[in-house]
Amino acid sequence: MEQSIAPELLAGLLANHDHDTIIAYVQSQHSVDIAHALSALEPQESIALMAMLELEQQASIMDYYPTDYRIDIAEALGAERLAALMHHMSHDDRAEVVRGLSEELATQTLQVMAKAEREDIKRLVAYPEGSAGAIMTTDYVTLLPHMTIQEAIDHLRIHAPAHETVNRAYVVDKQRTLLGSIRLQTLILSSPHAVIESLMEQHTHSVEWDDPQEYVAQQISRYDVVALPVVDQHHRLIGLVTHDDAMDVMVQEITEDFYKAGTVGKMSSNVRYASSWLLYRKRIMWLVLLVFGNIFSGAGIAYFESTIASHIHLLFFLPLLVGSAGNAGSQSATLIVRALATGEIVVKDWGRMMVRELLVAGALGVTMAIAVSLIGLVRGGQQLALVVACTMMIVVMIGSLIGLSLPFLLHRLRLDPATASAPLITTLADSIGVVVYFTIAAYFL
Amino acid sequence: MEQSIAPELLAGLLANHDHDTIIAYVQSQHSVDIAHALSALEPQESIALMAMLELEQQASIMDYYPTDYRIDIAEALGAERLAALMHHMSHDDRAEVVRGLSEELATQTLQVMAKAEREDIKRLVAYPEGSAGAIMTTDYVTLLPHMTIQEAIDHLRIHAPAHETVNRAYVVDKQRTLLGSIRLQTLILSSPHAVIESLMEQHTHSVEWDDPQEYVAQQISRYDVVALPVVDQHHRLIGLVTHDDAMDVMVQEITEDFYKAGTVGKMSSNVRYASSWLLYRKRIMWLVLLVFGNIFSGAGIAYFESTIASHIHLLFFLPLLVGSAGNAGSQSATLIVRALATGEIVVKDWGRMMVRELLVAGALGVTMAIAVSLIGLVRGGQQLALVVACTMMIVVMIGSLIGLSLPFLLHRLRLDPATASAPLITTLADSIGVVVYFTIAAYFL
Repeated sequence: MEQSIAPELLAGLLANHDHDTIIAYVQSQHSVDIAHALSALEPQESIALMAMLELEQQASIMDYYPTDYRIDIAEALGAERLAALMHHMSHDDRAEVVRGLSEELATQTLQVMAKAEREDIKRLVAYPEGSAGAIMTTDYVTLLPHMTIQEAIDHLRIHAPAHETVNRAYVVDKQRTLLGSIRLQTLILSSPHAVIESLMEQHTHSVEWDDPQEYVAQQISRYDVVALPVVDQHHRLIGLVTHDDAMDVMVQEITEDFYKAGTVGKMSSNVRYASSWLLYRKRIMWLVLLVFGNIFSGAGIAYFESTIASHIHLLFFLPLLVGSAGNAGSQSATLIVRALATGEIVVKDWGRMMVRELLVAGALGVTMAIAVSLIGLVRGGQQLALVVACTMMIVVMIGSLIGLSLPFLLHRLRLDPATASAPLITTLADSIGVVVYFTIAAYFL
Repeated sequence: MEQSIAPELLAGLLANHDHDTIIAYVQSQHSVDIAHALSALEPQESIALMAMLELEQQASIMDYYPTDYRIDIAEALGAERLAALMHHMSHDDRAEVVRGLSEELATQTLQVMAKAEREDIKRLVAYPEGSAGAIMTTDYVTLLPHMTIQEAIDHLRIHAPAHETVNRAYVVDKQRTLLGSIRLQTLILSSPHAVIESLMEQHTHSVEWDDPQEYVAQQISRYDVVALPVVDQHHRLIGLVTHDDAMDVMVQEITEDFYKAGTVGKMSSNVRYASSWLLYRKRIMWLVLLVFGNIFSGAGIAYFESTIASHIHLLFFLPLLVGSAGNAGSQSATLIVRALATGEIVVKDWGRMMVRELLVAGALGVTMAIAVSLIGLVRGGQQLALVVACTMMIVVMIGSLIGLSLPFLLHRLRLDPATASAPLITTLADSIGVVVYFTIAAYFL
């Protein structure tokens, strides 16, 4: 396995003004590795290092910077230098930069760019965040159906896309309506006199510009394609989403859900270099919200103070019972959140899932009730065993049903199902567990 | 957005023996959609439907079945029919099928296959699960460095790979040592008389056969490539991992971590169609384990029974204090588990992360202590406010440090850091919280 570049090494070389070594070293590295290393340095240091390189390499490093850091660099560069770099950047990445700039700098930068580039960027920036339009590139080549293979190859020679990952050319008519696509391999292997129309694949999967990014990523993954064409409402080709962006979208979506499951807010920056203040902000909200949730459990306990005072040994089982409810609920929520995110299940499956959950939670409840009743027998006799077994059975069922239903409910309310995190479920289940336990205990004892 | 095929529709058509409609319908669909729909039916039903289609389409459907279901189908088909299908399947998928078969059926199936195919499968099956070798395909084309472009194109015409995603040809010497690669686009656009060696890119990223799958997937994502060549210890080309497999690996890895974070065991099957018994098995182990963890909290409470009995109002704050410790710990663990999984941080970063965590947890603890002391003032006066504020500060710090350290510790012990789930951290933090709270209370009150 190869090792990536240590940021400390670059910082050291920079500090020693060892320009020749830096240039020789950096030119032998892949831009993505340089970008990762530089993103750990101060923007001014990175700019000083970038300035030693060719514009093309600088642009390629810009393509690979993490989003937040790239904006810092862009702001520090200023309009003139940024515009020169953006000329060489990939079309989707430069649009993303403009989207993040202050309005003033964005206007200034666009003003000094060539008209065609300016309009390309403006068009891409106009697509709403999270849509297919916002991650598509306009850096691809189109062919006309009546071209011969030889004409197509000559056309490619002039307009060949720089994009690494494209392995198909798209066939459109004069109105840019998407007609089909042809693999580069087919171009190579066919007679030069054959006509594109007779060789192209007609049923080319496409997505619409306003389809959500996750949907586009799922389609690319499902159909194992390198890229998907994006069309407008008249089925005109307007862009291309490539597999590398799809992979980023998928990983980013699951990571967000993963963070939510641990009640950590959305973070685009690297955990390693995140500031304490950022981490504080991403964590404090849920911690405080959950305190208020826990007040209900506290109130429940306070309500049963007299029962507890006369049967203080009941407290031994409290963490165990309410904990199990929360744990069972977290499990259900985890399964449902993921399945809703992948589209494996949809809201109308709630009933069907509920029936199965009753079975599963019932079986789990019985197993847990038997386990806890044995501890009950040892610690307090038959009656206590009965109380804790009944409670366990009920709270595991209730916890599981909350865990199952909450993601559906959030989805229904157009909120993110991943908000149904383990800590939230645990907090909800805790307060219900307290009430169930002491109610049953008060009845039996 | 398009809709996938409803399994019920296929089952209905099958039940009515409406063969013509089935064939017409299925032939117009993508194999991945057919495979998804069929995988909800009984294997015998799917086999009945597949039997109506061309062998090529049957094989393509096999390529797309979920792993477990594919094995069921393979076992039901028997050696002869399976061998015929495997002839048309993709090289990596058919090796995966053989890996899952019973030894008897695997031997029988391989016996009826052609020698070259049998040896290709045997070679692929020998690579250990989880390694680059186990997900690579051998379905690609190689060129020799002294070939002219025209010779290369003629060579491609004969050996053109069927694999959709390949956009490069790899250049090897007579010993199959990887020398470089050339984009199909370059082949199209160059003079027919130019020599491959002069046009190929020499620094082609490659991975070794025993590199872990996650590493390979990360490399494909990092360098935005469509495929990565796999080499043996002598740098000889032995396979190719394509972007679609890399995406599957990445999603599968994060999904497993996501499940672990909710204490649900590893599941390869679809949540929608998972049986109650499977779900029970994936959930019961952790539920029972955590009960034992909770016994410590219970024992802590039992130990302080006399303090609690004389200050029963302390109980109101118990869920809130111990809950906050668990929640803060879950947040830290979530961040570290993800960062360890992506390689953003490594074990030796523990110290650095610890310092930052002390700052963040300190700030969180102070905020939470202020909040809870206000509630304490209202419910019990200054002294109670002091007790709960001190406890909150301490348990939030301890919870956070446990949440931060446990994933590192697990990683160090060569266990999966994702085992540091929210429920586990909560359970650990609970017992510590109980002891801290009542110790402080006993001291002050």
